[in-house]
Amino acid sequence: MKLGVCYYPEHWPKARWVQDAQQMREIGIEYVRVGEFSWSRLEPAPGELDWSWLDESLAVLHQHGLKVVLGTPTPTPPKWLVDQHPDMLAKDENGNVRGFGSRRHYTFASTSYRTEVDRIVTLMAQRYGEHPAVYAWQTDNEYGCHDTILSYADADLIAFRIWLKEKYGSISELNTAWGNVFWSMEYRSFDEIELPNLTVTEANPIHRLDFQRCCSDQVVAYNKLQTEILRKFSPDRDLIHNYMGFFTAFDHYKVGNDLDIASWDTYPLGFLDQEDIYRDDEKQRYMRTGHPDFGAFHHDLYRACGKGRLWIMEQQPGPVNWAPHNPAPANGAVRLWTWEAFSHGAEVVSYFRWRQAPFAQEQMHAGLLRTDGEYAEAAFEAKQVSSDVEQLAHQLDLSVDDLMALPSKGQVALVFDYDSCWTFDIQPQSNAYRYMSWFYRCYEAIRKLGLSIDIVSPQSEFEGYEMLVLPAQANIDQEMLLRLQAFEGRILFGPRSGSKTSDYRIPDNLAPGKVQALVDVVVERVDALPKHTQLNVYGSWGRGAIQNWHEQLKAEPKERPQEVLLKTDNGTPVLVKQLNSYYLGSCVDDGLLEQIFSRLAQSSGLTTNFLPEGIRVRDRGPIRFAFNYGNETREITFSGYEKLLGSNALGQCDLSIWRATS
Amino acid sequence: MKLGVCYYPEHWPKARWVQDAQQMREIGIEYVRVGEFSWSRLEPAPGELDWSWLDESLAVLHQHGLKVVLGTPTPTPPKWLVDQHPDMLAKDENGNVRGFGSRRHYTFASTSYRTEVDRIVTLMAQRYGEHPAVYAWQTDNEYGCHDTILSYADADLIAFRIWLKEKYGSISELNTAWGNVFWSMEYRSFDEIELPNLTVTEANPIHRLDFQRCCSDQVVAYNKLQTEILRKFSPDRDLIHNYMGFFTAFDHYKVGNDLDIASWDTYPLGFLDQEDIYRDDEKQRYMRTGHPDFGAFHHDLYRACGKGRLWIMEQQPGPVNWAPHNPAPANGAVRLWTWEAFSHGAEVVSYFRWRQAPFAQEQMHAGLLRTDGEYAEAAFEAKQVSSDVEQLAHQLDLSVDDLMALPSKGQVALVFDYDSCWTFDIQPQSNAYRYMSWFYRCYEAIRKLGLSIDIVSPQSEFEGYEMLVLPAQANIDQEMLLRLQAFEGRILFGPRSGSKTSDYRIPDNLAPGKVQALVDVVVERVDALPKHTQLNVYGSWGRGAIQNWHEQLKAEPKERPQEVLLKTDNGTPVLVKQLNSYYLGSCVDDGLLEQIFSRLAQSSGLTTNFLPEGIRVRDRGPIRFAFNYGNETREITFSGYEKLLGSNALGQCDLSIWRATS
Amino acid sequence: MKLGVCYYPEHWPKARWVQDAQQMREIGIEYVRVGEFSWSRLEPAPGELDWSWLDESLAVLHQHGLKVVLGTPTPTPPKWLVDQHPDMLAKDENGNVRGFGSRRHYTFASTSYRTEVDRIVTLMAQRYGEHPAVYAWQTDNEYGCHDTILSYADADLIAFRIWLKEKYGSISELNTAWGNVFWSMEYRSFDEIELPNLTVTEANPIHRLDFQRCCSDQVVAYNKLQTEILRKFSPDRDLIHNYMGFFTAFDHYKVGNDLDIASWDTYPLGFLDQEDIYRDDEKQRYMRTGHPDFGAFHHDLYRACGKGRLWIMEQQPGPVNWAPHNPAPANGAVRLWTWEAFSHGAEVVSYFRWRQAPFAQEQMHAGLLRTDGEYAEAAFEAKQVSSDVEQLAHQLDLSVDDLMALPSKGQVALVFDYDSCWTFDIQPQSNAYRYMSWFYRCYEAIRKLGLSIDIVSPQSEFEGYEMLVLPAQANIDQEMLLRLQAFEGRILFGPRSGSKTSDYRIPDNLAPGKVQALVDVVVERVDALPKHTQLNVYGSWGRGAIQNWHEQLKAEPKERPQEVLLKTDNGTPVLVKQLNSYYLGSCVDDGLLEQIFSRLAQSSGLTTNFLPEGIRVRDRGPIRFAFNYGNETREITFSGYEKLLGSNALGQCDLSIWRATS
Ligand SMILES: [Zn+2]
Ligand SMILES: [Zn+2]
Ligand SMILES: [Zn+2]
Repeated sequence: MKLGVCYYPEHWPKARWVQDAQQMREIGIEYVRVGEFSWSRLEPAPGELDWSWLDESLAVLHQHGLKVVLGTPTPTPPKWLVDQHPDMLAKDENGNVRGFGSRRHYTFASTSYRTEVDRIVTLMAQRYGEHPAVYAWQTDNEYGCHDTILSYADADLIAFRIWLKEKYGSISELNTAWGNVFWSMEYRSFDEIELPNLTVTEANPIHRLDFQRCCSDQVVAYNKLQTEILRKFSPDRDLIHNYMGFFTAFDHYKVGNDLDIASWDTYPLGFLDQEDIYRDDEKQRYMRTGHPDFGAFHHDLYRACGKGRLWIMEQQPGPVNWAPHNPAPANGAVRLWTWEAFSHGAEVVSYFRWRQAPFAQEQMHAGLLRTDGEYAEAAFEAKQVSSDVEQLAHQLDLSVDDLMALPSKGQVALVFDYDSCWTFDIQPQSNAYRYMSWFYRCYEAIRKLGLSIDIVSPQSEFEGYEMLVLPAQANIDQEMLLRLQAFEGRILFGPRSGSKTSDYRIPDNLAPGKVQALVDVVVERVDALPKHTQLNVYGSWGRGAIQNWHEQLKAEPKERPQEVLLKTDNGTPVLVKQLNSYYLGSCVDDGLLEQIFSRLAQSSGLTTNFLPEGIRVRDRGPIRFAFNYGNETREITFSGYEKLLGSNALGQCDLSIWRATS
Repeated sequence: MKLGVCYYPEHWPKARWVQDAQQMREIGIEYVRVGEFSWSRLEPAPGELDWSWLDESLAVLHQHGLKVVLGTPTPTPPKWLVDQHPDMLAKDENGNVRGFGSRRHYTFASTSYRTEVDRIVTLMAQRYGEHPAVYAWQTDNEYGCHDTILSYADADLIAFRIWLKEKYGSISELNTAWGNVFWSMEYRSFDEIELPNLTVTEANPIHRLDFQRCCSDQVVAYNKLQTEILRKFSPDRDLIHNYMGFFTAFDHYKVGNDLDIASWDTYPLGFLDQEDIYRDDEKQRYMRTGHPDFGAFHHDLYRACGKGRLWIMEQQPGPVNWAPHNPAPANGAVRLWTWEAFSHGAEVVSYFRWRQAPFAQEQMHAGLLRTDGEYAEAAFEAKQVSSDVEQLAHQLDLSVDDLMALPSKGQVALVFDYDSCWTFDIQPQSNAYRYMSWFYRCYEAIRKLGLSIDIVSPQSEFEGYEMLVLPAQANIDQEMLLRLQAFEGRILFGPRSGSKTSDYRIPDNLAPGKVQALVDVVVERVDALPKHTQLNVYGSWGRGAIQNWHEQLKAEPKERPQEVLLKTDNGTPVLVKQLNSYYLGSCVDDGLLEQIFSRLAQSSGLTTNFLPEGIRVRDRGPIRFAFNYGNETREITFSGYEKLLGSNALGQCDLSIWRATS
Repeated sequence: MKLGVCYYPEHWPKARWVQDAQQMREIGIEYVRVGEFSWSRLEPAPGELDWSWLDESLAVLHQHGLKVVLGTPTPTPPKWLVDQHPDMLAKDENGNVRGFGSRRHYTFASTSYRTEVDRIVTLMAQRYGEHPAVYAWQTDNEYGCHDTILSYADADLIAFRIWLKEKYGSISELNTAWGNVFWSMEYRSFDEIELPNLTVTEANPIHRLDFQRCCSDQVVAYNKLQTEILRKFSPDRDLIHNYMGFFTAFDHYKVGNDLDIASWDTYPLGFLDQEDIYRDDEKQRYMRTGHPDFGAFHHDLYRACGKGRLWIMEQQPGPVNWAPHNPAPANGAVRLWTWEAFSHGAEVVSYFRWRQAPFAQEQMHAGLLRTDGEYAEAAFEAKQVSSDVEQLAHQLDLSVDDLMALPSKGQVALVFDYDSCWTFDIQPQSNAYRYMSWFYRCYEAIRKLGLSIDIVSPQSEFEGYEMLVLPAQANIDQEMLLRLQAFEGRILFGPRSGSKTSDYRIPDNLAPGKVQALVDVVVERVDALPKHTQLNVYGSWGRGAIQNWHEQLKAEPKERPQEVLLKTDNGTPVLVKQLNSYYLGSCVDDGLLEQIFSRLAQSSGLTTNFLPEGIRVRDRGPIRFAFNYGNETREITFSGYEKLLGSNALGQCDLSIWRATS
């Protein structure tokens, strides 16, 4: 694993640049991201380009052996550009223009802005495409941050009408697909269609879903515009984008297809504090370490989006400024997070940011250096990681590059699907149900069993796993069904799987639609439970409570033998097995969920462990990592493994690294 | 009682229509509502009318002996019409246009839309006014749904100025009536008056009240525009509108005056979940049956709005899609609700809807048929009702029509007043006070005593009851006082009665204003309590707590003898009796409220029973109905009655029907 | 102390005016405020002035020996004026116009409105400037009420650009000061700068702070426009404005500089109910008396804004109408509040209002008279105060004027700073931190020790106190440091002191910036705690909990000896003493806070008492006042004091007055 850092030379006097580079090396940093917010410095006035400071900065970094990830400056177009193209601005759901004064002030669909993006990226790629310091490019920054995927400006309406026309060909096709006969919503032409905001009551869910898909595609096209230029003028460099935590508003797999590496920006404390996925007791318990599965979940998700290649572009180094509350991390947390990333296959962990700036919006956001230029706590922990890596490589008798080449494939695959997330966010049917929450709880339950997980896209090949889980795959089409039927391990379908067609309709054969080809169940009625309401569930696979979502299933085996593993008090089935497929019709409590996955894993021939609270484990090839996110010290050993680093007694933020001896 | 169903033939292939009609008959359905959302099918392009499909559908229904309630299609004007008249759209309180894409996208005050309504209703009435299948008409659909009564568009401003001019004649009259000298709000002409939204702080309450009255009158006029056309071209057919639960934004009595029947759309689970009238413990206890008084309250209210004639136009048949959470009803709940409606005088209970559509906004809203065309649970319960009705008629040796002619008059009258509701919603004086909540708790307290209630309008004749309750009649004028003085039973006035003039002023003689002619009390000071604050109250009529609203009363008997039945710890009077009139100056807890009404009923010569939790009773002539909304089984018998249907042990959703033997 | 009342003769028939004046005298009232909302009566149409009614009213009041405070009518411009100048209206943060229909419908920055203000104030001052009845003037009314300081209209943008140009001179100065290199926010001219609303994410904090400062300066200029006219045409009259509770959106010290007296409008119950500074248990306990420090805090604050001269312009007389809940005050509360004001130096306490109007927005707001013209409870209590004053003067053998000349200086000074309040409201770093809450809790802790407090501006001379507290002085510049270094008593700096420069940057030497010249501490890291999270703290000065805000301090004494009085479990310092200066790096619980101030006061030679709950004490020269805001009766005596008025056993709302015997 290599370390990196995000660096803003334009914030500091040139006189300091050499010292900065020297100190980076001292800490063990090898990669430096620069440039992504610097448009006003690169082009202070229309057409007046000033590359001098960037030339100079790259030279200093290069001289010190640092490899640069150069960011295209498009997340922050300067004021003069916005004034030239006021139509480039996004509008919020209420129709208010989202103006200049912070960042991301553009809508992806704007053709006038895309022309400017084309211009500046071309200029930059021409100048630095073959620069020896430039190792990779980052396109723009954090697509979607500050809710910027859905925009309701004129540019978005134009793009939406074009997108619909391309998809449906004729307006009658669209009317039929959308079911517009309902409430007389039929259109006579694509030009009659409006955006799905400011309607009297909710818009047609397929109207909203298609709009979300269109907006997602605008991001893909916008990113591709940049990658095509970069490929042309800067061949052989890796192209990267830095994604964010719990962002689902665009399809990251599709954006990832045009890039070489997926990176993401990980702020474990800020996200714990701000996300309602986490319960209050979790927010308190993990306030200084982050939730034990926050990093892991995203590493696994974005490794899939990166087709196997993963970086951390921004790693939280101390307190941040943007969450509702911003406590300091526990000592050791930065090192813990860094190693967790490596255990999931990260090639580089880059800290945000080199030095805390004493001005502007993020002045209270920590860096490796304090505002006064002294080392902050995170700098010492990063340096510790550098020496950890050397020690580990030495013990394994490997080079650091060999270390990075260790396999990172997991034992269990979970299918994460952006389209399904949009589908159920648009019509949750119960405020107590959220696709992401349910998915995350499935991920957590499996990981608490000590299993290593891969997240995979619904388009991927599933073979090579013993166990495949589709927590809530809304739409399963014929092609996907064939892949599922070909899969030889165990498959578990969660509730709502197969419950919608791609046109946001209930399948003709009712939910779970195509899943019926594998498990003979029909969802006769949905019973979306209010919060705090529970139904009893029990059977040969355990006992527990149904909460948030319940389907009244009818299970009628046709040819294949069928087993009901869990049922309600009334005897209606909840978990049904048929050959190697399982259908779970209800969301269940965390304890039962862990039981279900434990038994499923056992049936699949996988070894599981019920890990103590706060402890998590991940394997990378023969190397096993153990981490403690909890407040209690735990004794952790593994039979068949020898310890390479760390102690058996893991205190808060401690980790140990082991090698399989067999 | 007859059964009906809401049917959308346009959602389904014609090939299915005959089977639909056959199955309707099989279940025992006699009435079918069609058409109200079909404008885009009736007029796919401006002026291009297509009646063929509706002709055909009516023919099929008629051939099967089904009676059609034809809906005017005005709740969902098509997109082309909206594009022709963008000024017809409503604006929300923030001035945002409420656009096309769902339904009810018009403001009642729009003259351009009224012209279109006139045109389409005339065309439809001309074509189907004498059609043999057409039994009745429904005007538009669910006035007020999605907060569509108050709109802040230009059309509304124009209408408001005209309305004010008609009401006040001269601007100086208005200035005086409104007290515009306060804060220099005086106008020089009606053209200076704006709508009461987006003011710096709250607008003058009479400004808001008059705007609410004006908007309510727009609904009346809009509805009347339709009824006048229908009366002309379709004489002898009943005219109906379908109201909604807990909607108070327009005066339903006034709309009802131009119709023959009041119907309403009853969704007991959805409303329980969404309304903050209900406490959390009630939401949990009754999550699968609805609150025991939800249906009853609205049946009694809308029977008054229908001048005695009541239908249920849409009865919830299973889980719906639009509440925060959407659980399934308990088995038997649909039957329970249907019978409850009959016990309150409903002529027809019509289910929403025939078949769940697999597309668009309400795809998760159940029907009698599932999306795959099979019977859903509700179909079986409806069929059960059909056979219940036959059994009951048989046991009584009556025809079903005779059954429907049984009297439905109650023993106790409660005055519900839309104007009072608006008055106190505009200035609640305490967030803990709401007219509807207080009214509903009074209704519940009386009904828990086993009494049958009539809700009456403040303009109605009060005679014929032993007991009359005005929970919070804001404005009592001289004419109403005469009717009250003429009343020979007991009258109880609740807190805030008589506290405002029709111009939203405090009466010259202070609250309770004209009530002082009956009970010699003066509200010296109002003490609006924060939530969770209680004052002790006790006296010869019981003991309990004052909450939410408290008036410091001075009671000084003039000629008539006076009795203080309840007082506070300080000895200030709370409940004062004078001759046959009672003034209650505070909101009290549910237990004491029940005590008060029990004693009042006893004094009035009425027999009361403290019913077990979840049990409710209603009499219709000599027939008594008992219902169980609770989770516990209860033994219920009545001396002087013989049982006709059901058992003594009533489980959840069970009902029993009795006949007086004396 | 003198009594006054707010009077609206325009609300009542002239026939009543003489009786009003007589009754005012009967109660002991001497001052009468009139006119501030009467523009539509003074100028019913453009240019048509009607002074007759005001002439007549002033004559009646004058004949009865009443002194008039004449309000300029500018808080409520009439509709015709607004229609002439629609650009005078404010816009809210979402860009919506805040229209006519209530009051304060203007933005301070509007030049068109200022021209009208100039015109009407000149006319009024010319007519009444030398009128014998006119004792003083009130400018406008309650600046800032209904969130009217920040406005986002065109007039505000123009004013902001001018203000910035004046402040920074060149755009490059501004870019540097604001750190606009961050996120490419650099401008090329002042005309490119927008208002800081509707940005995609938060605007630059200095952008927001400068906008707040600019808006505050607009209030100062607007007020000065009025005072200059009044000084010219009405010399020798006192000029007053009436401020509000917990309003911090403009700098009241600066407005106060152009006035003679600061007054404020005190509504103890309404503010208790509405402000989230108060915990729920406080809202319940003090629901009928107000919080014991609410009045005191504001009296002390506004006495500073009035350079020593304080009035109460509006004193709550009974239930009001505008809070979420509006209970009645306890009997005696109005008298209690009146005397509390006097004990803090108030010259006049004026009740709002003479007679409750039965119409318009405030019809449920009590007065000294009820709507029917009878005395309300408050009238009797005001009369009681009049006779109290006489009794007290008699016992002291002083005239009432002598009584009013008693010194009102406190023993301890607290620095309240509007700029610091804005700074930390803009970037609280934790939702659990608020400047005002922390300041108020410091004030409360000191006052619960029986000490008399002065609040002082950061620009004031600090000498003359034994103890000086800066709860959270964001920016301490060199000039202020000199004054602090010259101070000879004890100084305590609270957390966040010195943490920002005037340009909203972190100081080069880190927080606490210039404070480091007095106490050798550095804030190494900020640890903003989520609600309900606590850290242990203990040491020689006590034991308790850190909550909401925690700084990780490094304390390294240079030349001066240093003492760590409190530290965390990890041993990091929390309270550090160096010579006569103390730095407290964390917010601590109320109990520990009281301990800290008790020890600090003792070190300063001040005598402290831990007062029983609900009891407060204030000294005015040799006179001591004791007040009971609690529900329990308490025995209160003071050694070295003799009692002049009241009893030793203080029940709820009781007070006692004492004289030092030594
Ligand atoms: Zn970032
Ligand atoms: Zn409906
Ligand atoms: Zn006021």
